[in-house]
Amino acid sequence: MTPTFRAMQVASEGQLELVERDVPSPGAGDVLITVEVCGVCGADRSDIEKADPATRRIPGHEIVGRITAMGANVPDIWEIGQRVGVGRFGGPCLQCAACRSGRLHLCRNQPVMGADTDGGYAEMVVARASGLVAIPPELSSSEAAPILCAGIATFNALKTSGATAGDTVAVFGIGGLGHMAVQYARQMGFRVVAIGRGQDIAADALALGAHHYVDADQDDAVEALSDMGGATAILTTAGDAQSVSNLFGGLALGGRLMLLGIGPDPLAVSMGQVVGGERGVAGSLTGSPFEIERTLDFSVLSGVRPQIETLPFEQANEAYLKMKTGAAKFRMVLTMESDADAHQ
Amino acid sequence: MTPTFRAMQVASEGQLELVERDVPSPGAGDVLITVEVCGVCGADRSDIEKADPATRRIPGHEIVGRITAMGANVPDIWEIGQRVGVGRFGGPCLQCAACRSGRLHLCRNQPVMGADTDGGYAEMVVARASGLVAIPPELSSSEAAPILCAGIATFNALKTSGATAGDTVAVFGIGGLGHMAVQYARQMGFRVVAIGRGQDIAADALALGAHHYVDADQDDAVEALSDMGGATAILTTAGDAQSVSNLFGGLALGGRLMLLGIGPDPLAVSMGQVVGGERGVAGSLTGSPFEIERTLDFSVLSGVRPQIETLPFEQANEAYLKMKTGAAKFRMVLTMESDADAHQ
Amino acid sequence: MTPTFRAMQVASEGQLELVERDVPSPGAGDVLITVEVCGVCGADRSDIEKADPATRRIPGHEIVGRITAMGANVPDIWEIGQRVGVGRFGGPCLQCAACRSGRLHLCRNQPVMGADTDGGYAEMVVARASGLVAIPPELSSSEAAPILCAGIATFNALKTSGATAGDTVAVFGIGGLGHMAVQYARQMGFRVVAIGRGQDIAADALALGAHHYVDADQDDAVEALSDMGGATAILTTAGDAQSVSNLFGGLALGGRLMLLGIGPDPLAVSMGQVVGGERGVAGSLTGSPFEIERTLDFSVLSGVRPQIETLPFEQANEAYLKMKTGAAKFRMVLTMESDADAHQ
Amino acid sequence: MTPTFRAMQVASEGQLELVERDVPSPGAGDVLITVEVCGVCGADRSDIEKADPATRRIPGHEIVGRITAMGANVPDIWEIGQRVGVGRFGGPCLQCAACRSGRLHLCRNQPVMGADTDGGYAEMVVARASGLVAIPPELSSSEAAPILCAGIATFNALKTSGATAGDTVAVFGIGGLGHMAVQYARQMGFRVVAIGRGQDIAADALALGAHHYVDADQDDAVEALSDMGGATAILTTAGDAQSVSNLFGGLALGGRLMLLGIGPDPLAVSMGQVVGGERGVAGSLTGSPFEIERTLDFSVLSGVRPQIETLPFEQANEAYLKMKTGAAKFRMVLTMESDADAHQ
Repeated sequence: MTPTFRAMQVASEGQLELVERDVPSPGAGDVLITVEVCGVCGADRSDIEKADPATRRIPGHEIVGRITAMGANVPDIWEIGQRVGVGRFGGPCLQCAACRSGRLHLCRNQPVMGADTDGGYAEMVVARASGLVAIPPELSSSEAAPILCAGIATFNALKTSGATAGDTVAVFGIGGLGHMAVQYARQMGFRVVAIGRGQDIAADALALGAHHYVDADQDDAVEALSDMGGATAILTTAGDAQSVSNLFGGLALGGRLMLLGIGPDPLAVSMGQVVGGERGVAGSLTGSPFEIERTLDFSVLSGVRPQIETLPFEQANEAYLKMKTGAAKFRMVLTMESDADAHQ
Repeated sequence: MTPTFRAMQVASEGQLELVERDVPSPGAGDVLITVEVCGVCGADRSDIEKADPATRRIPGHEIVGRITAMGANVPDIWEIGQRVGVGRFGGPCLQCAACRSGRLHLCRNQPVMGADTDGGYAEMVVARASGLVAIPPELSSSEAAPILCAGIATFNALKTSGATAGDTVAVFGIGGLGHMAVQYARQMGFRVVAIGRGQDIAADALALGAHHYVDADQDDAVEALSDMGGATAILTTAGDAQSVSNLFGGLALGGRLMLLGIGPDPLAVSMGQVVGGERGVAGSLTGSPFEIERTLDFSVLSGVRPQIETLPFEQANEAYLKMKTGAAKFRMVLTMESDADAHQ
Repeated sequence: MTPTFRAMQVASEGQLELVERDVPSPGAGDVLITVEVCGVCGADRSDIEKADPATRRIPGHEIVGRITAMGANVPDIWEIGQRVGVGRFGGPCLQCAACRSGRLHLCRNQPVMGADTDGGYAEMVVARASGLVAIPPELSSSEAAPILCAGIATFNALKTSGATAGDTVAVFGIGGLGHMAVQYARQMGFRVVAIGRGQDIAADALALGAHHYVDADQDDAVEALSDMGGATAILTTAGDAQSVSNLFGGLALGGRLMLLGIGPDPLAVSMGQVVGGERGVAGSLTGSPFEIERTLDFSVLSGVRPQIETLPFEQANEAYLKMKTGAAKFRMVLTMESDADAHQ
Repeated sequence: MTPTFRAMQVASEGQLELVERDVPSPGAGDVLITVEVCGVCGADRSDIEKADPATRRIPGHEIVGRITAMGANVPDIWEIGQRVGVGRFGGPCLQCAACRSGRLHLCRNQPVMGADTDGGYAEMVVARASGLVAIPPELSSSEAAPILCAGIATFNALKTSGATAGDTVAVFGIGGLGHMAVQYARQMGFRVVAIGRGQDIAADALALGAHHYVDADQDDAVEALSDMGGATAILTTAGDAQSVSNLFGGLALGGRLMLLGIGPDPLAVSMGQVVGGERGVAGSLTGSPFEIERTLDFSVLSGVRPQIETLPFEQANEAYLKMKTGAAKFRMVLTMESDADAHQ
C-alpha cells in the first residue's frame, strides 16, 4: 500500500479541507520533510482566497520539520533526521544573475511555498535543499516557525534601514510581523516607537520592548514622531497605501520609509519631502536561508521569541480565521503530531 | 555720495527691472562680493514669478565674483580680491543639529539666495562666509557658475545613488541639470542612458557622453531600460510627478529613483515594485560649500564643463525667458562688466 | 580682590599640586565653566608625566559643569547655568577642510583639553563653545563624565566597525574604555566577547554584558574567537602592539581590527591574512560634540552607565595612581564642591 | 586511440615541459574547455617554482576558451561552443557559509586553478561550471584573459576602497595588476597617482591614464601624496612589506591602504597613524564569476584593455621568464592554435 500523509488543502471560498496524499519521492536537489509545525502568515491569504481550488494547493510557508528523505545532489550539510525550516521562498536556483551576484533572496526562480508549490499545512512537504535552514536547538519548532518569515522580514529590514544605535525607529502595524519588529528593534539599540490601532495593543507593545506607543486611531503619528525629532526609519507592515503614505512626514532628515507589506494601491509620496529632507522609500524582501539562520541565531542570543498560539493543523480553518480577523496574539502556529513539544 | 550698484530686481508678472541700490556694508560673518557672473536656474522661476514684487527681491543663486569687503569674524581662509562662489543655500549656521552632525547641506537656517535674501542678478551681493566656495583657476567664472547649483546637485546625487562603476544610470530631463548629470555620470564610469523629450536633443545627449538616448515622446523608457537589465539609479530633474512615477518600473533589482526636481503633485509608487525588487526612492539636496568645491575640482579633473550661453545681466529678462522656454542649451549665464572673460 | 579658583596642576615627576588661579574671562567663542566633576582617563598619563612642568598645565578632559560666563559670539543654543560637558577635543574650528567636510571630529585645529590648554582637574575651566555638549538630566555629572571620552570612543568605534546585530564583537582590554565597550556592544545586539588579563575580571565582564570571557593570560584568544566563527570586529583599547597584532587571526572573513588605543610600536599585520580573508585594520578617534550627545542619549536609552569611583579633586594624585595601576573599577571621577550629587 | 592534448607542465627548477595528456571527461558540474589563450600571472610563480614536480601540475589561471563537453548537472546558462573564461578561483561550492551568505569569492572550497588542479597552460582544461564567466564578443580572447585575474582584482579593489569620484587614488606597482588599476581608476573618475620604480615607466603610466607619476626610487612617495592632500586609497600590488608599509603615511584622513599583493613579511603599521587619522588597511581578494563578468563589461564600456604580448603556449618558459623579470609590458598571454585571433 502506498504510504500517505494528511494535509489541509485549499477547497473553495477561502476554506481548507483535510485530504490524504501519497507520500512523494524527493527529486534531485530536493528533500522530503516530516512537518512538525507551520506558522499561519498574512501572506497565506492570497494563497487561500485567490488560488484556484482546482490546483488543490496546500498553503503554509513557515515550516519546521525533520528531513525524512533526500533526492540526488543534496549538499552534505544536510542529513536525514535533521530539524530544518523553510520560509516563503523555496530556495535560490544558484545560477541566475541575482544568485550569481550573491543576492540569493532576490532570485526569481524560487518556488513560492504555498503558492507555486505545496506548503506546510501538512504532515509532509517537499522542499529544495537550497531553501533549507538549520534550526538551533535552543528554539522549539513552534518558536522557530514564525521567525522563518515574520522574523527574517523584520530583522533584515531593520538591518538595512540605515538606522544606527540610538536612532528612532517606528514600527507601523503591531501584528505578526510588527510584534517581531518591535522586539528586534529594541534588542538592536533603537529607540522604538510602536504605532498601532487602538489602545488594547498599547500594553502589549510596551511589554514587547517599545519605548513609546502611538495609537494611530487617536493620535497624529506624524506629529508624535516629529516631536521626538523624527524617525530614522519607519517599518510598515500594512498594505493600506494611504495610511502608509501619511507616515512619510514623520521621518527625520535622511530618514527612510521601509516597506514590508504591500497593497494594491500606490503610495503617494511628496516630492518636496523627499528632496528637501533627503528622505526616501525602500523595500525589504525577506532574506536568504543563510540570513534566516542569522535571524534564528539572533533570536536565541537576544531572547526574542514570537508570541504564538498553537492549534492542531486539522484546525487550520480556525487558525486562519483568527489570523485574518486580527484575533491572534500574535502568530498562529499549526502543530502536527510529530511535534514533540506540542504533544508531549 | 553713497556708492551704488546696479541690479535686476523682481518687478511684476515675472518681469525683472534694472535698479540702482546703495552698496551695503557686510555684517559680522558676511562678505561683500563684486559679482562677475550669475547663472540662470530653473529654481529662479519661483523666486521671480511667485515672489511678492513688494519685496524687491534680486534673484540669482549661481554667483561667482570677488570678495570686495569683509565683515567681522570672517574666517581667514577668505581674503579680499579672492574669486569665490555662492550657490542656492547661503551658508550653514554651524550651530543647529544638522550642522553639528556634519550634514551642513541640510541646515535649515541658511538663507536661500534669491529667495530669502538678495541674489546674484546684480553687480554686488552680500553673502555669508560659511556659504562661500573657492573657484579653481582652471575654470572661467561663466563655467564655474552653473556648477554651484546644477553641478553639485547632480554630482552629489550620482555619488549617493548607490550605483557603482559599470552600472546603468539613467538621467531623465536633459536640460540645465541633466546635461551636467550626463557628463558626470560618464566620467564616473556609469553606463549612461539619457531620457529626453524629442529627437532634437539626441545628438547633444550622446555628445555629452550618454551611451544611449531614449526619446520619451516616442519610446517606452521603462521598456528601454528593462531591455538593458534595468537602471541601478534614475536621476530625475523634472517636477512632473506622473512622468517621474512612470519611470519606476525601469529600475533594476535594488535600484533607486533619485529625485532632484520637485513638483506640486505626489509621486505614485507601487508598493509591490518597492518590496518585490527592493527598489526605492531617495532625494538629493544640493551639497555643502565643501562639496561644491569638490564638484568644481572634479569638473577640472575630468573636463566636465557646462554648456552655456551668456548675456549681459541687463538682459536678464531675455535670458530668463530662454531658460523658461527650454531654448537655452543648456545654461544661461548673466555676465557683469567685472567679468574679465566676457568683456576682454 | 580678584576672584580665584583652585586647580590641580602638573608639578614634577608625575605629581599634581593644588594651586590657586585667577578666574579668567572667556574670550570670543569661549565659555567659562564651573566644573562639577572630571574623569581620570588613561590619556591623562601623557599630559601628566610627559608634560613640561613649566607649562603649569591642568590635566583633565572628561569635564562636566555649568556655564558661568560666556564670551562674545557664543551660539544661543547655550545659556548661563546650563550643565555641559567637554571631552578630549576642545571644539572644532568650523573652517578647516575637515570641518567643512562635516568630519568635525577630525579637525586638527582643536585644543586638546589638558594638553594644549588647561583641563578639568579644577574648579573652573575655559572651553570653546563649539566643543560643548549638553548633558541630559537623566545622568548625574559623575555618570556623564566618562561618557565624554571613554563612552564616545567606544560607541562610535562600534558603530563604524562594520558589525551588525548578531555579529561577534570582541573587546580587548576591560578597563576604563573596555567596560563601556562591553556594555554598548551588548545593547547594540552583538555577541560580545570580552578579552582581559586574569580571572578576577571575568565576573565583572559577564555582569557588564559580555556573553563570553577569554582570559588572555591563560587561553589562546585567537583560538577562542576562531571556535566561535571569528569576530567581525575586535576593539582594542590597549597600546601594546604585540598583543594587539596577535589578535588579528581571530577575525572572521571580512572582519576588522578597530584600534582605539595607541602605543609606540607598530602593529605587525600579516599581508596574507589581510588579502586572503579581506580582513582589515581601522581606527576610530572619539567623536564630535554632536556624537557625544548621541552617546549620552544612548546611555540613557539603554541603561549603560560607567562604573565609577569618586574622590574629591584635591585627591587627584591618589585617583590618578589608582587609574594608572589598574586598581580602579573602572573609572575614577574627581568631584568638586559644586557637584550636588557628590556633596548633598 | 585515446584523444590527447598538449600542455606545459611543471618540471623541475622552475621549468615547464611540453607533455601530452589524455583528454578527460568532465564530471558532474564540470565542463571541458578547449583553451584559446592563457595569461601569465605573477601568482604563477608559486605554482611553478614551489610546486612539487611530482604533481605534474599544469599552471595557468587566466584561461579563455570554448566549452567542448559538459558533465552532468551543468546549469543551462552554459552551452557547447560558448566562449568562457576561468580565473584564479575555480568555482564556488555554493553550499558553505561564505557561499550561502552571498560572498561567493570568499568560498574556501574552490579549487585554485594551476595550484590545486590543472590550469590553462594547455590545449584543454576541466573547470567547474560555477567558476565560468561569459566572455563578451567585443573582447578578443587575449584581451579578456588578463581581466579574469589582474582585471577583477584591481577593479573590485577600487570599488571597495571607499574612494569616490574626484578622490586621489594611488597605485603602487605598475606591472600586470597595476597597469589595469591605473586604467580603471581613471575611468572611475579618480585622481590617479601611479607610483613605480624608475623613470622608464613614467610615460607608460601617464599614457594609461595616471594624472601623476611618482618615481619611488627618486622621490618620497609619502611626501608627494601628502602634497596632494593625501590619498583616499592606495592600492598595492607588490609583496614587499617594507615598501608597502612606508606608504601608509601618504593616506588622507580616513584613507585606506588596499592590499592586493602579498609577501612573507608582516606590514608594520603605526597605531598612531591609524587612530589619529582614522586610516586603515584592508584587503581585496579577486571576485566572483559574476563580478568578473561585470569587470569585462566595464572594460568594454570604458575602453580599458590590458597591454599584452603574446607567445605560442609552447614558449611558456620564455613568457614566464619575461613576466618574472619584469620585461613584459604589461602582461604575457600564451596562445593556443585554437585562438582564431592569434592564428588567423
